[in-house]
Amino acid sequence: MLKKVLLYTVLFSSLLSANAFAGVDDETAYALNTLLFLISGFLVMWMAAGFCMLESGLVTSKSVSTIAAKNIGLYSIAGIMFWLVGYNLAYGIPEGGYIGSFTSWSDGSAIATGYSDGSDWFFQMVFCATTASIVSGTLAERIKIWPFFLFVAILTGVIYPIEMGWQWGGGWLSAAGFSDFAGSTLVHAAGGAAALAGAIVLGPRLGRFDNGKLVPFANSSIPLATLGVFILWLGWFGFNGGSQLALGSFDDATAVATIYINTNLAACAGVLVCATITRLVRGKTDVVMMLNGALGGLVAITAEPLMPTPLMAIIIGGIGGALVFAGTELLTALKIDDVVGAIPVHLIAGVWGTLAVPITNPDTSFGTQFLGTASICVFVFVVSIIIWGIMKATIGIRISEEAEKEGTDVAETGVIAYSIRD
Amino acid sequence: MLKKVLLYTVLFSSLLSANAFAGVDDETAYALNTLLFLISGFLVMWMAAGFCMLESGLVTSKSVSTIAAKNIGLYSIAGIMFWLVGYNLAYGIPEGGYIGSFTSWSDGSAIATGYSDGSDWFFQMVFCATTASIVSGTLAERIKIWPFFLFVAILTGVIYPIEMGWQWGGGWLSAAGFSDFAGSTLVHAAGGAAALAGAIVLGPRLGRFDNGKLVPFANSSIPLATLGVFILWLGWFGFNGGSQLALGSFDDATAVATIYINTNLAACAGVLVCATITRLVRGKTDVVMMLNGALGGLVAITAEPLMPTPLMAIIIGGIGGALVFAGTELLTALKIDDVVGAIPVHLIAGVWGTLAVPITNPDTSFGTQFLGTASICVFVFVVSIIIWGIMKATIGIRISEEAEKEGTDVAETGVIAYSIRD
Amino acid sequence: MLKKVLLYTVLFSSLLSANAFAGVDDETAYALNTLLFLISGFLVMWMAAGFCMLESGLVTSKSVSTIAAKNIGLYSIAGIMFWLVGYNLAYGIPEGGYIGSFTSWSDGSAIATGYSDGSDWFFQMVFCATTASIVSGTLAERIKIWPFFLFVAILTGVIYPIEMGWQWGGGWLSAAGFSDFAGSTLVHAAGGAAALAGAIVLGPRLGRFDNGKLVPFANSSIPLATLGVFILWLGWFGFNGGSQLALGSFDDATAVATIYINTNLAACAGVLVCATITRLVRGKTDVVMMLNGALGGLVAITAEPLMPTPLMAIIIGGIGGALVFAGTELLTALKIDDVVGAIPVHLIAGVWGTLAVPITNPDTSFGTQFLGTASICVFVFVVSIIIWGIMKATIGIRISEEAEKEGTDVAETGVIAYSIRD
Repeated sequence: MLKKVLLYTVLFSSLLSANAFAGVDDETAYALNTLLFLISGFLVMWMAAGFCMLESGLVTSKSVSTIAAKNIGLYSIAGIMFWLVGYNLAYGIPEGGYIGSFTSWSDGSAIATGYSDGSDWFFQMVFCATTASIVSGTLAERIKIWPFFLFVAILTGVIYPIEMGWQWGGGWLSAAGFSDFAGSTLVHAAGGAAALAGAIVLGPRLGRFDNGKLVPFANSSIPLATLGVFILWLGWFGFNGGSQLALGSFDDATAVATIYINTNLAACAGVLVCATITRLVRGKTDVVMMLNGALGGLVAITAEPLMPTPLMAIIIGGIGGALVFAGTELLTALKIDDVVGAIPVHLIAGVWGTLAVPITNPDTSFGTQFLGTASICVFVFVVSIIIWGIMKATIGIRISEEAEKEGTDVAETGVIAYSIRD
Repeated sequence: MLKKVLLYTVLFSSLLSANAFAGVDDETAYALNTLLFLISGFLVMWMAAGFCMLESGLVTSKSVSTIAAKNIGLYSIAGIMFWLVGYNLAYGIPEGGYIGSFTSWSDGSAIATGYSDGSDWFFQMVFCATTASIVSGTLAERIKIWPFFLFVAILTGVIYPIEMGWQWGGGWLSAAGFSDFAGSTLVHAAGGAAALAGAIVLGPRLGRFDNGKLVPFANSSIPLATLGVFILWLGWFGFNGGSQLALGSFDDATAVATIYINTNLAACAGVLVCATITRLVRGKTDVVMMLNGALGGLVAITAEPLMPTPLMAIIIGGIGGALVFAGTELLTALKIDDVVGAIPVHLIAGVWGTLAVPITNPDTSFGTQFLGTASICVFVFVVSIIIWGIMKATIGIRISEEAEKEGTDVAETGVIAYSIRD
Repeated sequence: MLKKVLLYTVLFSSLLSANAFAGVDDETAYALNTLLFLISGFLVMWMAAGFCMLESGLVTSKSVSTIAAKNIGLYSIAGIMFWLVGYNLAYGIPEGGYIGSFTSWSDGSAIATGYSDGSDWFFQMVFCATTASIVSGTLAERIKIWPFFLFVAILTGVIYPIEMGWQWGGGWLSAAGFSDFAGSTLVHAAGGAAALAGAIVLGPRLGRFDNGKLVPFANSSIPLATLGVFILWLGWFGFNGGSQLALGSFDDATAVATIYINTNLAACAGVLVCATITRLVRGKTDVVMMLNGALGGLVAITAEPLMPTPLMAIIIGGIGGALVFAGTELLTALKIDDVVGAIPVHLIAGVWGTLAVPITNPDTSFGTQFLGTASICVFVFVVSIIIWGIMKATIGIRISEEAEKEGTDVAETGVIAYSIRD
């Protein structure tokens, strides 16, 4: 009997210490994975403020209140539309299919699912809102608020969920082998394509182009624009890091850290490339281009922030920054008025990042990456241009000439943005 | 013997894999729960910046430096007072009692307590500071800094801890069955009641009402006010999510995610309701009202962010937003000058949210909710009006007429807020 | 047999419940520790935005775009230099040695290391960037951008990593028993010393001193400066809390919470001491001094945020605040033009905090603390002044008089910071 007790005691203590080897238990993993979604989610939610500050700073001072109203409004619309229909349109999709079901989301969490359904919903919802934020800046200073809100409702409730479901919902692009880790194309290029469609239908601001040359419009506040980029940079750790979708294991925790590093280095490279180019080409170190260079680097690394070495992340982000500079020149040549530069940043750098995935990820191919990028961009652009066109022909999307001269703040929100006596 | 070894081996390995079913161990839960408090705590701390930006943006440009000084000062006073006496006044309360002990806080953490005492202290401290932040905006542009600081010391050291202890410290309201998950009444309506008392004693700004009509005063910076609301919205995930008080189990992690969703949806609804109302009633989409609508939605859902379905969260938040609009009209009719709209947002939407709890939480009753809300609002209002009154009669609380015309920045801080040459 | 089965069953279930005593397993601890680095790291990254806002707000309005360009540029340079060479220069150091190897960082994570190497790299990188941020403000409004960037590359790639490795890389100061928990001296005083060297070589702004008296220059935006301090305060929870380096145990989680409390209380005390001093000495409650007082309190507690009681944290932080006031007066007397007050805040309060460690930490001595503080400050100051001197004699570091009169925004970035019509 004594021997038996001894034996059990040994066994018991060995098992206690064995816990150290046992690895993460399922419930702890559930809590950690859920926590990753929540932290990453609130960081991406914070990006809505970043877009708002960036756009507030870059528009002229007579359109700042309207930018504020548009940004807090679009985030609110995205939140409700994604619950009402978007989530199930994206994730209720049959394997390899094209579209899910038009029902509203409900929670089905269990330890076995690995994370709280609600935390995933929250994380996906803020991605959806990001897509809409991208559109806002391009169309600033001339679009009517409520038609813009209507477009946002369609974009966040239907357009984005459909194309996102093709990949992350397990649809046909995913089945084809396409890869877009955190959404260089699914989110950023898609938002940029919708913005491009809007900019074409809407036309440039009055006096923006004079005999084919760009007339510089004064930015209302460079420090606010800079704050916006810092907010976006911070939020991007959630955007890319959270897209690992799990934290509760050695592999996942290590991966999230790698993603943070690559995301950061790509942005650093984007900044420095744009600082160098503008200094060499124009003689001045253009701070606005540095800001958009950071974003170009971030967008470019988003399609594959895990596999690159640090050096490759720097190269991918640096090229992203250079493309922002080139894309800005291109838009000027095409006389497309993109108020904050969202098209070069999100569409052009996003396409680059997605096409570059096979350089570092051997499980992907350039052909499939091209297929996915082209499909999504064309789909979003075509649907958007039809919707913008219908709205233009019916309810109208552009404020009157007099209203534009007075500024959208007077015409739309009735609130002057700055009132400063010094 | 061989059989026995075999048996033990089987047993041993089954136990190793059993770890997966074993659930979260106590020490891991301790770390996770503590982490929830720390993350939520820094998010709520960040709300102090949100209030500061919101108020800086909404006051006229001659009172912005003073707002900055008041906000960083009140957060500092709250931190020290809550340590010196507030925490034990709230939590050292006898079961079902009315007041705790006037001693300073000390740490008594143990794994068995489930989380670090210090992390809980930190989380509760930032709640206390929030109560004081609410008061600041209402009284802007005419109150003297140091009497304001004295009131903050009393509010954060004594008034708030006493009423908070009635519920969260296990006092008589908790015993009566009152429910206020994250403080729609304990924090927000209480802060609003203190602000209302101050506004009445202090009177409106010079020239604010002309023949009973409101004279519009220009907001110094709408983008800063918008930034403030985004900061508050972000911080609210900590405010409500952290109030689950635990993360280290399936149930808790799932609950925190649900709270994030409901908190977000309520704010979305508040924004859209106020955008719609102002567009329909006034013809313009008032961005300031959209901002306060977001806050009204957030305050309303704070009393019960866990039980509502998403649709109910939208309804509760939307009504919160509508009440902010109505409450603002009401204050104008009463000629009470609430510079930033803190009374409609925190007092009125807070009362609504607390009274609405029984709609979704079957363990509560309208009678008890009314008892709790009324007790706290009356207690805070009466004590505050007495203190404001005594201060007015002795040290004085209002700056001179000349000082008010020059602006508090010249009179109080001696620092001009904006100096911009363009 | 039945008895045996019963016995095993009992044993089995006791073991399952034993999991509760078993403590955190190694892989869970790995995930939690990594998470602490990632969360703390993004909070410290956010401090880069805080410095940018603080400096943007405190300079005159004709130098704000340049401040923005410098701050986003320096963070980008720090990120790349620390990867390229800095990390291994600091951590590849032989035990008790003076310098590591000039190689770029690579990941070597394993569960046994306790946390992801990458997460630690990320955390250390943002510390490195902080050192550079400190230098930026002091030299504002007169330094050329690209020579500044060159200095940042040397500071973040070589100077900071060398002195930091002396302590945190296990070098000679660590062997001597020096203690600097989160870097009052390693980061803050070092940054301040580099800034002081630059300020001496560069000289004051034109017209800053008139017959030995300081001429007040108007701050461009007090709310942005205040936002900057709130950002820094928030980031400091990551700065000090993350320096515990682990979260996955009872002791570590409890320690991080204690650090949050002490960090917060020290800042509160710094604010209130500066508010009181300026009110008593100058008659006005100087908001800029309150802001720098917060930072002085934060810098002072950084050398030892774990051991002090709350009261001691208040005293250490309060003295830090007082020293910021005194140091500002001292610099004026010495006619050193420190645009944002970074030298009193980071150098003087940093030295105070490091020397004060033995008051609460019995494992340290005043002699060793003095040795470490003096070694690092002298090393950084001397190397910096040599580099600034060489750069001044060769490429030039100061913009022309005409450029300075026009403002750095016109001369350097070509972008006007504010363009506001009201």
